Amino acid sequence: MLPKKDVLLIKHLVLNKSAEAHKILANLHPADIAQILSEIKNGNKKLFFQMMTSSKAAEVLEEFEPHDRLQIIDEMSEAETIKILENMSVDEIIDLFQEMPTAQAESLLRKLPQEDYDELKSLLKMAEDTAGGLMTTDYVYVFSDATVDEAISDVRQFGQKAETIYYIYVVDDKKHLKGVLSLRELIAAPRDKKIEDIMHTNIVSVHVDQDQEEVAKIISRYSLLAVPVVNEANRLLGIVTVDDAMEVIEEENTEDIHRMAGITPEEDIALSKTIWGASKKRVLWLIICLMGDMLSSKVIDGFSHVLESMVAVAFFIPVLMATGGNVGTQSLALAVRSMATEKLTRKNVLSFIVGETLAGLQLGIICGAIVSILAFAWQKNPQLSIAVGLSMGISLVIASLIGILVPVIFRVFNIDPAVASGPFITTIVDISTLAIYFTVSTYLIDVISPNIVSTVKEVLT
Amino acid sequence: MLPKKDVLLIKHLVLNKSAEAHKILANLHPADIAQILSEIKNGNKKLFFQMMTSSKAAEVLEEFEPHDRLQIIDEMSEAETIKILENMSVDEIIDLFQEMPTAQAESLLRKLPQEDYDELKSLLKMAEDTAGGLMTTDYVYVFSDATVDEAISDVRQFGQKAETIYYIYVVDDKKHLKGVLSLRELIAAPRDKKIEDIMHTNIVSVHVDQDQEEVAKIISRYSLLAVPVVNEANRLLGIVTVDDAMEVIEEENTEDIHRMAGITPEEDIALSKTIWGASKKRVLWLIICLMGDMLSSKVIDGFSHVLESMVAVAFFIPVLMATGGNVGTQSLALAVRSMATEKLTRKNVLSFIVGETLAGLQLGIICGAIVSILAFAWQKNPQLSIAVGLSMGISLVIASLIGILVPVIFRVFNIDPAVASGPFITTIVDISTLAIYFTVSTYLIDVISPNIVSTVKEVLT
Repeated sequence: MLPKKDVLLIKHLVLNKSAEAHKILANLHPADIAQILSEIKNGNKKLFFQMMTSSKAAEVLEEFEPHDRLQIIDEMSEAETIKILENMSVDEIIDLFQEMPTAQAESLLRKLPQEDYDELKSLLKMAEDTAGGLMTTDYVYVFSDATVDEAISDVRQFGQKAETIYYIYVVDDKKHLKGVLSLRELIAAPRDKKIEDIMHTNIVSVHVDQDQEEVAKIISRYSLLAVPVVNEANRLLGIVTVDDAMEVIEEENTEDIHRMAGITPEEDIALSKTIWGASKKRVLWLIICLMGDMLSSKVIDGFSHVLESMVAVAFFIPVLMATGGNVGTQSLALAVRSMATEKLTRKNVLSFIVGETLAGLQLGIICGAIVSILAFAWQKNPQLSIAVGLSMGISLVIASLIGILVPVIFRVFNIDPAVASGPFITTIVDISTLAIYFTVSTYLIDVISPNIVSTVKEVLT
Repeated sequence: MLPKKDVLLIKHLVLNKSAEAHKILANLHPADIAQILSEIKNGNKKLFFQMMTSSKAAEVLEEFEPHDRLQIIDEMSEAETIKILENMSVDEIIDLFQEMPTAQAESLLRKLPQEDYDELKSLLKMAEDTAGGLMTTDYVYVFSDATVDEAISDVRQFGQKAETIYYIYVVDDKKHLKGVLSLRELIAAPRDKKIEDIMHTNIVSVHVDQDQEEVAKIISRYSLLAVPVVNEANRLLGIVTVDDAMEVIEEENTEDIHRMAGITPEEDIALSKTIWGASKKRVLWLIICLMGDMLSSKVIDGFSHVLESMVAVAFFIPVLMATGGNVGTQSLALAVRSMATEKLTRKNVLSFIVGETLAGLQLGIICGAIVSILAFAWQKNPQLSIAVGLSMGISLVIASLIGILVPVIFRVFNIDPAVASGPFITTIVDISTLAIYFTVSTYLIDVISPNIVSTVKEVLT
């Protein structure tokens, strides 16, 4: 992050169209210029872009989210936009076009050079969250029958616009992917060797329709700088680079955390940018859980005679519900994250469940003992404190089990385990906790309630 | 992931010491060999390592978590271990040594070549979760007064063991970092140019003590393949590469999700690998929240006259508590994640809070209306259903506010906002929800309770 005083200074220089501003912008990293721009009023942003070369402007624009790119572009003339687009990488243009009204995208597309037009047209058809939607077509390839010398000169010539020249992809004359070579290996190889004799043939590649999360995981798993994207016929279509993979991982993590909290990810609903849009992604799980918790109400209703005979039973509803919910959410988080990082697999699922049950038992004994002591100190009623402690113990074991079993079952039925949100688990746990508490209480406390009732009657009469 | 049948076949070949196994292992990616090894019984793993070259064995070992590396090494003789260590990159050896008993690490260290010994000794002093703990010293540097030609031959000569040769760091004779150059730029430059004339001097670097999460964010922000690590005097000490940054991001995400669910991250407690260890990281927040929820119990106690006059008031405790907790957790997740991705900053915090409050109001109106209608349909009591609906509305606004304000306040006091776990927020929300519900109920229902009491008296007498 740029220090605040630098941001202010540069803002000042640009907005006053100082001669110095050109030089300063030329030396700043695109990410830093983007940081400054995010603090500039709309309408003034175009000043910055007019002070940069088109290629720098393109790099800066790429730093923004597609939606914000659109806003910036709307400030510029179409001619200015075209110039910047010509310098942007293909995958970034696609992200932008996907955000635009079709007519605007179509009009811009027509003004781009013909070869870009065809390429962009076909890329625009790919789904956004797949390898195809993520890839760029700016990569370096050489033919398998070329020599090292020819390959190096190809890299020099065609590598200018490529996203990376550190991996060189080897293809046949029909562009089937045959091998891969790092630049490091290429420059170390004897100049007259044939590429096919030094290339690696066990290639890690992804299918054009593969989910972007899987693509990012493959790049991370094999510590790659880029991964080639192919179709069914193994034809090379593009590459996905490590920086795009990092963005995907951040995006997917936001989604996981939101899902855990019962927030529907933006991609799952058509989200307007209004305030109502913000509530829309939260209301679904709230209503589902609200309906579920009405069952908890029914449980209390079913046992209202217990409450009528001893109102103090109600005092411990919150602490039991809350602790059960917390343990369920903990188990859920452990299960979901262990699945995402492949630490919980089909092979060890049973020992994972057993481990969680034992953990639930330990937590149940500890929390049960504490709440039991607190209850006795407060209410001086041995039956009630035993009922509260025992219910806590049992319900924490059950809560642990629910927290782990629900995502496991979801996985078996091929539902994303992260959909089993915290609120959903908490609702199920609430119902079971209250059922346990009131059943235990009925057994332990009901035996004394007739006396109380008759005592009350005696007093009143 | 390797298909299951391949895994089984390779397992079979290696365990039976088949001649083919050598060749197959040589052609497999280290990540895939690691996958197979994770399914092999301890004691048999060394067979795999004996069938690989030391450099392949080193790459495979690097795929494992430090703790698992230790287990594998324990199967091997010290001589075998030394051979593998000599082929491992420095940062990975450090991770391993940090996991070992000091005596074992010291004994292995003494058997390594003297130059490695000194280097490892100084690296071992760095804190694990800083740039220093993450960096490798295997990088390529050239002197600023060298020519492009000299630099290329340096890269060829010293680049063999380097983690990356795609960034070349330029230093003076005291190893102060002066500039950086990509391999791409180096090979495109005229052979007789001086390095200092073509290098970039606005360098993104990190301090050796900087937190690993910040380091990863910088690599991601500037789309780097590696970042140089320097000390106060700007002396170049090492580099952190993008694949290590990706691992850090995954680690930190696991931590965030766990913290959200009230699970203390492993690094914060000395964690034994027993079952008790698994509960230990969960019990802290459970007990804190249990104590907090006893305050909820006190709230109910304080209003027990309301329950005594109308037991149905208790029926809606679960649905109000659960929905309030859910909304609070949602706001928390949005706030924490927006801070982590720098979408919520000091500048827009006020409009974020206003937005959350409005969202809470909308959710309150929707959920309040639904629960009010359900309550009336069930209990046919207008006062009660208004009390429930109104309490729901008010408490969801408050819950939204608590969910956003607590992490914001934590941030102001420089506490990691992710420490404000879901359970913690839920506990505060529970107390406020119950206070709101019983206060509203007292006003709306108490007015009719004297009649009920006198009716009961009449019936009983």
